[in-house]
Amino acid sequence: MAPDYSNVDVLIDRLMAATWMARCGIDTRVVDKRGTKIYAGQADGLQCRTLEIFDSFGFADRAWKESNHMLEICLWNPDSEGKIRRSDRIPDTIPNISRFQQVVLHQGRIERFFLDSLKKYSDIKVERGVLPQSLTFDESKSEDPDAYPIEVVLQHLTEEEANPAQRQATNVSSNTKSDGLFRSNMAADDTDELLDKAVKNGRAGTRETVRAKYMIGCDGAHSWTRRQLGYKLEGEQTDYIWGVLDIIPITDFPDIRMRCAIHSVNSGSVMVIPRENKLVRLYIQMTTTEKGGNKLDRTNITPQMILESAQKTMAPYKITYEYCDWWTAYQIGQRVGSNFSKNERIFLAGDAVHTHSPKAGQGMNVSMQDTYNLGWKIAAVLNGTSNRSILKTYQSERRRIAQDLIAFDHKFSRLFSGRPAKDVMDETGISMQEFKDAFEKGNLFASGVAVDYGASILVAKDGDAAEQGDGTDVSVSKEGGRIIGKSDLATNIKMGMRFPSFQVLNQADARPWQFQEWLKSDGRWRIVVFAGNVSVPTQKKRIDSLGASLSAPDSFLHRFTPKDKPIDSVIEIFTIHSAKRAETELFDFPEIMRPFKKGEGWDYWKVFVDDVSYHEGYGDAYKGCGVDKEKGCSVVVRPDGYVGWIGEIENVGKCFGTNGN
Amino acid sequence: MAPDYSNVDVLIDRLMAATWMARCGIDTRVVDKRGTKIYAGQADGLQCRTLEIFDSFGFADRAWKESNHMLEICLWNPDSEGKIRRSDRIPDTIPNISRFQQVVLHQGRIERFFLDSLKKYSDIKVERGVLPQSLTFDESKSEDPDAYPIEVVLQHLTEEEANPAQRQATNVSSNTKSDGLFRSNMAADDTDELLDKAVKNGRAGTRETVRAKYMIGCDGAHSWTRRQLGYKLEGEQTDYIWGVLDIIPITDFPDIRMRCAIHSVNSGSVMVIPRENKLVRLYIQMTTTEKGGNKLDRTNITPQMILESAQKTMAPYKITYEYCDWWTAYQIGQRVGSNFSKNERIFLAGDAVHTHSPKAGQGMNVSMQDTYNLGWKIAAVLNGTSNRSILKTYQSERRRIAQDLIAFDHKFSRLFSGRPAKDVMDETGISMQEFKDAFEKGNLFASGVAVDYGASILVAKDGDAAEQGDGTDVSVSKEGGRIIGKSDLATNIKMGMRFPSFQVLNQADARPWQFQEWLKSDGRWRIVVFAGNVSVPTQKKRIDSLGASLSAPDSFLHRFTPKDKPIDSVIEIFTIHSAKRAETELFDFPEIMRPFKKGEGWDYWKVFVDDVSYHEGYGDAYKGCGVDKEKGCSVVVRPDGYVGWIGEIENVGKCFGTNGN
Repeated sequence: MAPDYSNVDVLIDRLMAATWMARCGIDTRVVDKRGTKIYAGQADGLQCRTLEIFDSFGFADRAWKESNHMLEICLWNPDSEGKIRRSDRIPDTIPNISRFQQVVLHQGRIERFFLDSLKKYSDIKVERGVLPQSLTFDESKSEDPDAYPIEVVLQHLTEEEANPAQRQATNVSSNTKSDGLFRSNMAADDTDELLDKAVKNGRAGTRETVRAKYMIGCDGAHSWTRRQLGYKLEGEQTDYIWGVLDIIPITDFPDIRMRCAIHSVNSGSVMVIPRENKLVRLYIQMTTTEKGGNKLDRTNITPQMILESAQKTMAPYKITYEYCDWWTAYQIGQRVGSNFSKNERIFLAGDAVHTHSPKAGQGMNVSMQDTYNLGWKIAAVLNGTSNRSILKTYQSERRRIAQDLIAFDHKFSRLFSGRPAKDVMDETGISMQEFKDAFEKGNLFASGVAVDYGASILVAKDGDAAEQGDGTDVSVSKEGGRIIGKSDLATNIKMGMRFPSFQVLNQADARPWQFQEWLKSDGRWRIVVFAGNVSVPTQKKRIDSLGASLSAPDSFLHRFTPKDKPIDSVIEIFTIHSAKRAETELFDFPEIMRPFKKGEGWDYWKVFVDDVSYHEGYGDAYKGCGVDKEKGCSVVVRPDGYVGWIGEIENVGKCFGTNGN
Repeated sequence: MAPDYSNVDVLIDRLMAATWMARCGIDTRVVDKRGTKIYAGQADGLQCRTLEIFDSFGFADRAWKESNHMLEICLWNPDSEGKIRRSDRIPDTIPNISRFQQVVLHQGRIERFFLDSLKKYSDIKVERGVLPQSLTFDESKSEDPDAYPIEVVLQHLTEEEANPAQRQATNVSSNTKSDGLFRSNMAADDTDELLDKAVKNGRAGTRETVRAKYMIGCDGAHSWTRRQLGYKLEGEQTDYIWGVLDIIPITDFPDIRMRCAIHSVNSGSVMVIPRENKLVRLYIQMTTTEKGGNKLDRTNITPQMILESAQKTMAPYKITYEYCDWWTAYQIGQRVGSNFSKNERIFLAGDAVHTHSPKAGQGMNVSMQDTYNLGWKIAAVLNGTSNRSILKTYQSERRRIAQDLIAFDHKFSRLFSGRPAKDVMDETGISMQEFKDAFEKGNLFASGVAVDYGASILVAKDGDAAEQGDGTDVSVSKEGGRIIGKSDLATNIKMGMRFPSFQVLNQADARPWQFQEWLKSDGRWRIVVFAGNVSVPTQKKRIDSLGASLSAPDSFLHRFTPKDKPIDSVIEIFTIHSAKRAETELFDFPEIMRPFKKGEGWDYWKVFVDDVSYHEGYGDAYKGCGVDKEKGCSVVVRPDGYVGWIGEIENVGKCFGTNGN
């Protein structure tokens, strides 16, 4: 008997990609081998860019409200007598790089926001206790848009199998030993074991075959998907072992609610990450050498041992706790996957293709941003609005980020784990000035807003595509008519970087908005027309003729938009002008910039103005973007908020004419 | 057989009071005669102060996110040729009076926020389809704290009875006639009818007797509770009839997303209130005279008729719609209840004691603020932290507000309903300048932040208590030791008004907060110590001795706090100092200002500083409050956020020593 099977466009195992599919209307299944949701304690810093992405999905406000906000980093170092003292204060988030600042929140809440969003926009459900048992891929069908080249046998686990007995206790006393290392990277992966058991128990109806057009594996450092594809993580494991304690601290250390990096003379380092609900996370170094040296018996690590290390480092300040929410230990490894996809059909993301120290606060952020980068591309190909060539940019863009991350993490870990130099002659010690400089530089990197994707079919910037990415060929051939945007028309908007935010007012109701709030993650491309000073007749004329060309029946706007869909459903046009709001009327603008919809009248949420608000000051958006207030420009923004092209107001069609989308 | 009965501390029928009880841990039942929640269309403006109150309960962010924000009022008047034109723009909310601005949101959502809050903090449920059938009150037990002087027989309705067939359709075509007047104030109240039916159907187990210590009746303009008490609404009904349409407008009127007041030469007036989800509410005048004149057959009012009136007023602009969410018509009456309570045991609130025009955007706001004023007082008496004398301040404070509201509404309605004057000689016409002035003045009133409660046992300000209130005697006798606060120590914080907001930073983690965010509605009194410049030794000494006196075993703080409760559970101390944050440590402050809790360590959320933030500028709080940056002062804040006393730092005990609390 042939096995039953079902078809699905995308098979994935994490929520960010699922959320994209939900917003883009793609047929998707999400499977997770675990029977339960996130465990206690697993918390993460959310960088500025991650919060911006959350906002584009509509739930940054929930994270912002529930999280702990980190404002300042305090550096503590030994003074000349060896006593730790606060040597520096640095802002945790560099001022003015984003409308958000870095915060910390339990992963369970973040998962909840994604699940609520999935529920709101789709009927995608996470199927828990389901894991892939075998994967076959028909390479010959890679380029066939109608084919389902991926076949996966899914094993459904029993509840018992999906919820192993070793589950993390939510409140451990300081003497509990066994649970903290469960699911630490120092414990063995249990996927194969789970699978073996399930196969042995094999009951009818617990296995099914799914054929998929695309598959995304974000299945962790031991990635089953990666192993099936035969891809490797390149790089190495260090001997640094760190303990983690999530506690409500009882301490006289004055900066316990700040993010702190504490270096003691001889007793190691502690990083303090204040969390929500009075919790504080402590990262404590348990070994002091990068390679070899005094080996620690890892299986003996206990919370008590971790606490004692912290106490030594933080002396003479006292620290203890009555409530411990979670603890673990891990070993730092810094590795990057050799390949991020198989024929742009099966993709790897997150820990499956890069592992690094959690202390840089990057873990969840970079992983989520991988699938944030990938999700809309797959959706656009499936929806027929883009061709498959854009999928190559996933590896080009994200593998490069992973490489940069690992380089940063390597340097940072070495500085953090090292012993402070006694003086300038102490060559094996770490210079605290160098550490501070690295921390500050790391802050910009860690914010996520510095991400700068290279030239490609999706980013019309100058230079060599392979060099700017990870080496993958994503260039537009000369014959294809490569176009290069004009970066000097918007000196603070960078092609390849995310569209920055600034406050503008809605022309129709004078409400101030951070313009980024309008760049929703719903799969749409955007054209932002900086219309300039429309009170000047010649400029007004430029806008009128742009309107005429956009609304022409043969315009790219009509070409890309299915006949039965609203004109703004594939490419949305926003206008930001710089004339006085009170001297301008919405109806002064061409109708295509405020399109009429049946039953709803004109669209009042498309035209904005760079003017003073009543209650929230002046955004000064043109200045902030480096755009000429009289002449303006046009900017094309990808569905993920990254800038694809900048050019003259009337040239925007050229970009869409040639760029594959 | 004697009827079974149950005891309850408070019996109420609206959510604001219930929310207070939930937050103060009071045994409460909430009954509502309706079987369902709020109907489509019932939307309301939320004033600044209402949003501040929502924030004190923890859900202003939800209202802020979902609502439509109104930023600007546009006045449209006939020009010399009789064509309407925009004559003025005024900010809808006066800048800098609050951290919120007026917004508009469907009542059903607001109800949802309250219900979610009730669920989070208590097990209070709204019992729907339940209405009181009889009320008896034993006046002789009024002053006995243990007595249940109120006995109410509650009738449980069947689902059919509680959900009358006449239910408002959510999507009415413009030809539907019958439903819009359902529950308009032009339809008869159906309480008695419901009751009659239920009695006739009388089944076993559908009736119960409840004995209560307190009862709050917010049962609308036809208030059953008020009728049982024999109290009257004083004032009169006008002949002004207004129609209301909630539509998605299709119009070329340029200000449809602004709040507009449109006066035409001869065709009446329209008020435009833009709402959420693309909806716009239009208030349209259907009659043109205050008394007598051409009578309209009210039962014939249809949405088509209302639309046609709007079209006449708004010509030459065109307006129509395909989607109507709701419509109604109402007659303006301006009346105030003679009494707001029976022996300070049974209270009336909201429409039960004041009715007025909805156009001022005051309806729900003033009603909610009635019970916001009342709820904590009842809870404090029941919890034993206040004596019953404070309950008299409810009528004194809120009846005065109702009187002021009706006076304002009377003037505003006349100006709004009248015909614009043709010129200065046109004596029966309305001066548009006068209208604009009234609108601007009305804006401050309508914001809710101008509320200024008179001198009383709860407000230690100078002057005659009866004169400043509604005439009720709420003064502190000279023998009782009346104290008067020192208003000159904080020139922008006013006794009797709500504590204003401004940004400060948390000393422990540098996070910026609007200080008002910490004034949670949880029943606690607050002492805000403006500690001044604590880097000056003499000032530091003042703070240290305040700390010593507050933590003395016989201090008022210990006297008011039950032995088994945390020291901040009845009165919470917040400190705002003006020294440099980075040169000050949390541990510089007396422990009573950052109390130690077992298992949790010290409290990091009690000491704030008036200093520059990294990302949100400088709040300049001392300047904003008019407090001397060196010397500071103390301010006592009531549980509802209103200022009770201002004085020297060290004198705060005096206020608590004598004031009844």
